[in-house]
Amino acid sequence: MAEPLKAFGRNVRKLRMQKGLSQEKLADICGLHRTYVGGIERGERNLGLRNVVCLAKALEVPPSELLRDLDRGKCTEPAGRYPRR
Amino acid sequence: MAEPLKAFGRNVRKLRMQKGLSQEKLADICGLHRTYVGGIERGERNLGLRNVVCLAKALEVPPSELLRDLDRGKCTEPAGRYPRR
Repeated sequence: MAEPLKAFGRNVRKLRMQKGLSQEKLADICGLHRTYVGGIERGERNLGLRNVVCLAKALEVPPSELLRDLDRGKCTEPAGRYPRR
Repeated sequence: MAEPLKAFGRNVRKLRMQKGLSQEKLADICGLHRTYVGGIERGERNLGLRNVVCLAKALEVPPSELLRDLDRGKCTEPAGRYPRR
């Protein structure tokens, strides 16, 4: 179930670099820590929908654009209510 | 910042009803509680990306479809790392 998070992270990184933004700048816009944005881009963070929407706004794309290609991942276990590592 | 969550909830509810699934059945598929799915549909839950992906799989749509029309919301404050009510 890590794969969708990795696909999401790749989308964020690609769009961030296209806009010439640093992780720190992107983090600042959304009130996040730079290391948290790094974790998102590595697919290590099961971020909440509000943060997805804020990242999309900062990157000037529709939120759905950040979820592009996520459907290639597997959902082999219940996702659960809280993030799991 | 509640509006994107409400738009997401409306999308989930519409697709769930189109498929003739109960909240309980949808919750079971994703390992969530029925009341949590109710909260999602009412836009009260800042759910994580894994749950977005699992709900999309259960509803047989690409994850990006569940984020349709979310870009009409506002991001007037930092989203923060943790959900806020």
